Amino acid sequence: MALLGDKEFFKGIGEIKYEGHESDNPLAFKYYNPEQMIAGKTMRDHFKFAMAYWHTLCGTGGDPFGPGTKKFPWITAKDPIEAARDKADAAFEFVTKMGFGYYCFHDFDLVDEATTLVESEKRVLKTVEYLQEKQKASGVKLLWGTANCFSNPKYMNGAASNPDFNVLAIAGAQVKIALDATIALGGENYVFWGGREGYMSLLNTDMKLEQDNIGRFLNMAKDYARSQGFEGTFFIEPKPMEPTKHQYDFDAATSIKSIREYGLENDFKLNIEVNHATLAQHTFQHELQVAANAGMLGSIDANRGDYQNGWDTDQFPNNVTETAEAMLVLLRSGGLQGGGINFDAKTRRNSTDLEDIFLAHIGGADTFARALLVADAIIRKSPYERLLNERYASFQSGIGADFVSGRLSLTDLSDYAVSHDNPDQISGKQEMFENLLNQYI
Amino acid sequence: MALLGDKEFFKGIGEIKYEGHESDNPLAFKYYNPEQMIAGKTMRDHFKFAMAYWHTLCGTGGDPFGPGTKKFPWITAKDPIEAARDKADAAFEFVTKMGFGYYCFHDFDLVDEATTLVESEKRVLKTVEYLQEKQKASGVKLLWGTANCFSNPKYMNGAASNPDFNVLAIAGAQVKIALDATIALGGENYVFWGGREGYMSLLNTDMKLEQDNIGRFLNMAKDYARSQGFEGTFFIEPKPMEPTKHQYDFDAATSIKSIREYGLENDFKLNIEVNHATLAQHTFQHELQVAANAGMLGSIDANRGDYQNGWDTDQFPNNVTETAEAMLVLLRSGGLQGGGINFDAKTRRNSTDLEDIFLAHIGGADTFARALLVADAIIRKSPYERLLNERYASFQSGIGADFVSGRLSLTDLSDYAVSHDNPDQISGKQEMFENLLNQYI
Amino acid sequence: MALLGDKEFFKGIGEIKYEGHESDNPLAFKYYNPEQMIAGKTMRDHFKFAMAYWHTLCGTGGDPFGPGTKKFPWITAKDPIEAARDKADAAFEFVTKMGFGYYCFHDFDLVDEATTLVESEKRVLKTVEYLQEKQKASGVKLLWGTANCFSNPKYMNGAASNPDFNVLAIAGAQVKIALDATIALGGENYVFWGGREGYMSLLNTDMKLEQDNIGRFLNMAKDYARSQGFEGTFFIEPKPMEPTKHQYDFDAATSIKSIREYGLENDFKLNIEVNHATLAQHTFQHELQVAANAGMLGSIDANRGDYQNGWDTDQFPNNVTETAEAMLVLLRSGGLQGGGINFDAKTRRNSTDLEDIFLAHIGGADTFARALLVADAIIRKSPYERLLNERYASFQSGIGADFVSGRLSLTDLSDYAVSHDNPDQISGKQEMFENLLNQYI
Amino acid sequence: MALLGDKEFFKGIGEIKYEGHESDNPLAFKYYNPEQMIAGKTMRDHFKFAMAYWHTLCGTGGDPFGPGTKKFPWITAKDPIEAARDKADAAFEFVTKMGFGYYCFHDFDLVDEATTLVESEKRVLKTVEYLQEKQKASGVKLLWGTANCFSNPKYMNGAASNPDFNVLAIAGAQVKIALDATIALGGENYVFWGGREGYMSLLNTDMKLEQDNIGRFLNMAKDYARSQGFEGTFFIEPKPMEPTKHQYDFDAATSIKSIREYGLENDFKLNIEVNHATLAQHTFQHELQVAANAGMLGSIDANRGDYQNGWDTDQFPNNVTETAEAMLVLLRSGGLQGGGINFDAKTRRNSTDLEDIFLAHIGGADTFARALLVADAIIRKSPYERLLNERYASFQSGIGADFVSGRLSLTDLSDYAVSHDNPDQISGKQEMFENLLNQYI
Ligand SMILES: [Co+2]
Ligand SMILES: [Co+2]
Ligand SMILES: [Co+2]
Ligand SMILES: [Co+2]
Ligand SMILES: [Co+2]
Ligand SMILES: [Co+2]
Ligand SMILES: [Co+2]
Ligand SMILES: [Co+2]
Repeated sequence: MALLGDKEFFKGIGEIKYEGHESDNPLAFKYYNPEQMIAGKTMRDHFKFAMAYWHTLCGTGGDPFGPGTKKFPWITAKDPIEAARDKADAAFEFVTKMGFGYYCFHDFDLVDEATTLVESEKRVLKTVEYLQEKQKASGVKLLWGTANCFSNPKYMNGAASNPDFNVLAIAGAQVKIALDATIALGGENYVFWGGREGYMSLLNTDMKLEQDNIGRFLNMAKDYARSQGFEGTFFIEPKPMEPTKHQYDFDAATSIKSIREYGLENDFKLNIEVNHATLAQHTFQHELQVAANAGMLGSIDANRGDYQNGWDTDQFPNNVTETAEAMLVLLRSGGLQGGGINFDAKTRRNSTDLEDIFLAHIGGADTFARALLVADAIIRKSPYERLLNERYASFQSGIGADFVSGRLSLTDLSDYAVSHDNPDQISGKQEMFENLLNQYI
Repeated sequence: MALLGDKEFFKGIGEIKYEGHESDNPLAFKYYNPEQMIAGKTMRDHFKFAMAYWHTLCGTGGDPFGPGTKKFPWITAKDPIEAARDKADAAFEFVTKMGFGYYCFHDFDLVDEATTLVESEKRVLKTVEYLQEKQKASGVKLLWGTANCFSNPKYMNGAASNPDFNVLAIAGAQVKIALDATIALGGENYVFWGGREGYMSLLNTDMKLEQDNIGRFLNMAKDYARSQGFEGTFFIEPKPMEPTKHQYDFDAATSIKSIREYGLENDFKLNIEVNHATLAQHTFQHELQVAANAGMLGSIDANRGDYQNGWDTDQFPNNVTETAEAMLVLLRSGGLQGGGINFDAKTRRNSTDLEDIFLAHIGGADTFARALLVADAIIRKSPYERLLNERYASFQSGIGADFVSGRLSLTDLSDYAVSHDNPDQISGKQEMFENLLNQYI
Repeated sequence: MALLGDKEFFKGIGEIKYEGHESDNPLAFKYYNPEQMIAGKTMRDHFKFAMAYWHTLCGTGGDPFGPGTKKFPWITAKDPIEAARDKADAAFEFVTKMGFGYYCFHDFDLVDEATTLVESEKRVLKTVEYLQEKQKASGVKLLWGTANCFSNPKYMNGAASNPDFNVLAIAGAQVKIALDATIALGGENYVFWGGREGYMSLLNTDMKLEQDNIGRFLNMAKDYARSQGFEGTFFIEPKPMEPTKHQYDFDAATSIKSIREYGLENDFKLNIEVNHATLAQHTFQHELQVAANAGMLGSIDANRGDYQNGWDTDQFPNNVTETAEAMLVLLRSGGLQGGGINFDAKTRRNSTDLEDIFLAHIGGADTFARALLVADAIIRKSPYERLLNERYASFQSGIGADFVSGRLSLTDLSDYAVSHDNPDQISGKQEMFENLLNQYI
Repeated sequence: MALLGDKEFFKGIGEIKYEGHESDNPLAFKYYNPEQMIAGKTMRDHFKFAMAYWHTLCGTGGDPFGPGTKKFPWITAKDPIEAARDKADAAFEFVTKMGFGYYCFHDFDLVDEATTLVESEKRVLKTVEYLQEKQKASGVKLLWGTANCFSNPKYMNGAASNPDFNVLAIAGAQVKIALDATIALGGENYVFWGGREGYMSLLNTDMKLEQDNIGRFLNMAKDYARSQGFEGTFFIEPKPMEPTKHQYDFDAATSIKSIREYGLENDFKLNIEVNHATLAQHTFQHELQVAANAGMLGSIDANRGDYQNGWDTDQFPNNVTETAEAMLVLLRSGGLQGGGINFDAKTRRNSTDLEDIFLAHIGGADTFARALLVADAIIRKSPYERLLNERYASFQSGIGADFVSGRLSLTDLSDYAVSHDNPDQISGKQEMFENLLNQYI
């Protein structure tokens, strides 16, 4: 049930209901049916949809060529705490009207940063208290918190990778506040996205020292959080570039390498963002699979990029095919490890109606729901898994199985090959697999 | 001194000499002066320039839209062994006329593959004998050998990652032959480039099994080579894509991650190719730095890509600025670990004069030589290293050094920051660094 | 009804039938129902699906890293004319089994090129005679012909843009033969794709002379064809790059500019290829719209690229969303001007079953059919066109209409604006439009 | 001589002098020697270097992930006119200290926009008066003016392409003010860059109407300016994307097509920006050549992009090789038609010293100067032009010349070819041309 604050911000829009794919109602779900069971879980539990505080409540549409366009009625109060409460009211009104169960935030999404750390912490604490009430009243939970250590000009040379220890220490203080807030709100996870952890020019950069410092920093943050009783998962969110020319957490593989170098593999997993995957020249499903193979598929930032534009457009998901391939990976690898689906997406700068925010999230949720239905049907009804297994059958018995179990040497391979050097030509059947996917969409 | 075979293939072209940058002679080095000392070593020893058998002697210019254009006089004999000897004669004539010390090959660059493994091995062995003579006569050495496990249609679904064990075994046999040949020729290193180790579609792929199989395969190859007395280094050559839609050894970071997962970190390093770096959206110098940071900067495949074209153009190096940044990384990280500079580059399809092959290699060698001179001068004469050290000075003493040595906790950082939350704004001075580089070019 | 030659090449595969989207038969159409009426025409007439001789019958799967993999049973005869007839038999068997109405070819797809122009022309003429019989027997027609002026090493520096007049003249002779063949076969159109009309390096290129020469050449070809009674349309097929570093016909806009510069706007239109659009950083639908706006939307080469790979992958269409947006442009702009949908697409190198060719074309045809159904439903049933018109309503009456009709000056605009400088903020509603599209898929 | 205002903003930095390439002074030109004659003109006259008001004086470093970092001392006054005068003082201090002759602006770079058009115009007029004095006192001139019709939220759906006539009219009023200001300041040219003239989604866009409206709008602007006595050139500045998903003036070819469609070819030329060229997958030199071939090479926005990042990074030029190829085009095509070299470039967000602005412009000017010296030397001293002419010699006499003069038919080509169908194979010698370029750098 929708939880309103003192005033209703999204007037004229009630709770969004599932009406089925025959519905013409733009303000209804056509595929996302929260309580529908799929593969042993409700859709709600598969996805754990979350609203992103930053885009949805703070992002007024500014871009490098112009300021914000959106007149958000919850951004009007002069007093920072009052403004933070209005924003929280808008947040919970939105989340509950959408029927979502979660939200995510950066520290200074919640409340404007102050000029000192001490005062900033006070503001966060007060806002956290208010959010605790709203959570209790609504049942909505915190999927993850994070600290914004990239917007403030202080971080222009990086946060944990800053060449100046003083700035690194400030980042530490800020992460401590964000961890405290996340813990206080029962946050299920905590995210690190290293917006300016990278370099603008390799010429003026000591990459090794910077990355080692990040490793030290993350360990300190982890140790602190554990000492405060935090039992959730930490996520690294890879991104190849932007704002820096090169970000250290380029993609899933690079981030896994770093996590292991830092000795954090028992506490950290990945938060995969669609648009970050495509900026790194990978598909979304590729990045999910890489994470899953390492046991690190933690959470998803749902959005999409533009294949003709080379920056992070953070558009709402609407590509059913791409998402269906992703949901195949998700279902086959056992789902997300602790995380959920956070809509790290923004309406276009010229989408200025408040209603547009609802339409965008509905479109995104329906895309995931439809994709999950497709993936589940493929697994249950189609010959997909059988065909895939048959493709690798030679490793399941005989000498192939011996190979897998490590019982062969190069000489053994060679001996076998000499008497079997005319193998059958076996088609990869890619077009058949692709048609099969389309058949279920 | 040039080593000719029965006939001279590159008639009218003698040994290429260093004539200095005032020379107008297109067939002279303007910067590459082999015996010139730089940073304690001769240019010759810094680079260990190598000719790539495949492009230089086998690549006749075919592309997806047309067959080869180049009429190589060493590709005329019908008998495979005779043809292989002609090619070897051309190889050593070219290498010695260029004044290079090394060459590199794939197994079936040396001699045409036969229809059976047994017969192919015989051909390779005979060719190796001939090459042993040529090496002895010329002093030219083998920088590295490798097996071509991607061209033969058998490998259309991969080699060590093939879904069919039979094909994997054949790849094993082929690698064994190539290792034997490399060892017999005193090869200093051995390379794995996984041309079809990747996938065309994730839909029909078991990525985890395929990668695990590659790991097993590489371990078997390493164990075999060590048992045969090979003491050189193994290299993985990363490439993000092409011919497959996605190659598993996407970039340096991804390959390092895999090497460690397979437990091969004591035996394997990286062979970084310029064009593969740029296809992966990295700079060449970035990839070198990543490898160096892991102690895995083994060797270089020198070429360049086209920034407007999205495939591996393998053009000869000619970008002094890019190469100078690379040589800065090289000199500052202690040089290549075992490898050299192999010209994995081809003249354009419409560069059909035999002379063009010389011009191209001269341009490439001069680019590296000039870049090394620039990098050395920057290190010796300019304030570059001092400026870079100053940028990170806060970590060299006091609380910053405490941080580096692991003596601080997140709370310590926070405590320090609270009383130091107004740090100096320190310019990154990127334009100054860039001007400094240009000043030395 | 399927037209077989002396032997059946695609044994075990009969005519492909429409079975509806509930069918599990991989060898049936699920959406392409040739006689179904949509927007006043049958699907068959909307699309005029054509088989591409080159990929389907000649493309054995070679790529820059390996030779062909596919063993086509129609490529076995040693005699070129006998081989050409076998290939023609395979072509008509395939087209008629698919139920398509058209095919397309390059001259030397039909029959192997000879060593002289005179002999090549004889071969083409003989093959044309055979094709005339096959066309008559089957009712299958020629959508368009073209000359391959890019594969032969002669064209390595270009054809009509070659720096050597002699090569340009040879290209002229070849185009004359191809035009004669196209006319003799009742070809409905003729295509120019300038595979090597561009440059590898601007340094050695006189771009202006090369482009002017192309203009002269195209006019000569047009004049000749018209003098021979050809009444069809000529198409330019844009592509930004590959094989050359830069192709002159970069995209639709560039090609339209050239067509007008050459004075060919009454005879030439465009053949838009999906993968060429995306290589040029455009969407397929963008290129269609640009062509339609100029009255030059002639024909389509149907395929798709890979968004992570930067070369022409020519995969079969399977993206329903992308194609639905394209079909919206097609239906709203009045359809193709003379051309059809040619499957300029190839099965993957490792798709080696003959069956795969059928599966791929079925998937492609179904993608277009489903997309057309979606686009038609959006136009007929949804508020799409009304919403779009409302967005531009201010130009349909009053001062906005005065502007459109050219009755205003800048001063008029300024005068109006001074008293109307606080316009309503009107959302672009992009997410709503996107959801609407998804609702109909 | 430096022209200071009431206070000196760039204290400690005097006039930048030419000291030659042996100088170690970071605040001296090493190649840009304004009065040095090259190819018949001074460097000063070749380049007409201009400062860009927006980046240099207004761009404080904000990006999509954080606000500005730069504390510009000329942005402090509260009164808009006083602030505008401070900014003008800083502008002329900078330009005169650099020894440049020109500046460029958008209307609201000069002075903050007011809330009404009437008040905005008043502010611009007052600022123009002040600039007239500064120009007179310094001799510095206005290279071009332009109107910023993309930042104000009003333009979120476009300016001249806006679906709402009201917004289009406001853009007209704004362009009128900017034209008046440009004329009053003796501006030599006027630029149109259509930042939001394009689309975010083709789904909600009537591309044809929008482009036709732009055509009408540009004609009105041109007619008005001519009626006010403006005799300079109008420039279109192409850019493929950003901020919109697709900009209508994608590249040089597309813009030339539009200029001709609008009937503006006698009044409009192009302003080519380096980074816009590379975003469109072209080289800078390609875009210059395309413009020159159409007689429309008007002006240059000098900067550079990052080849690994897909957005407009607007970095300062520092690539001597790229710029040398550009200067070859410039010198060989007769130079810029009316325009100059405007540094449309910004120091990095973390380059926060005021000195960095000088260093960056010095590096940029030196890059162009060195490149011009290289290009001039190649033309004068090397065999470059002879080699290029020889490549096309077959069109200068005999039947090739007949072809060029239009005296041949396709049949003539064919007849010639039949008896000349074995042409010489002529190498393109690309590597030789590339080495030659490097020899002169
Ligand atoms: Co994200
Ligand atoms: Co993002
Ligand atoms: Co290589
Ligand atoms: Co390569
Ligand atoms: Co095509
Ligand atoms: Co294509
Ligand atoms: Co610009
Ligand atoms: Co720009």
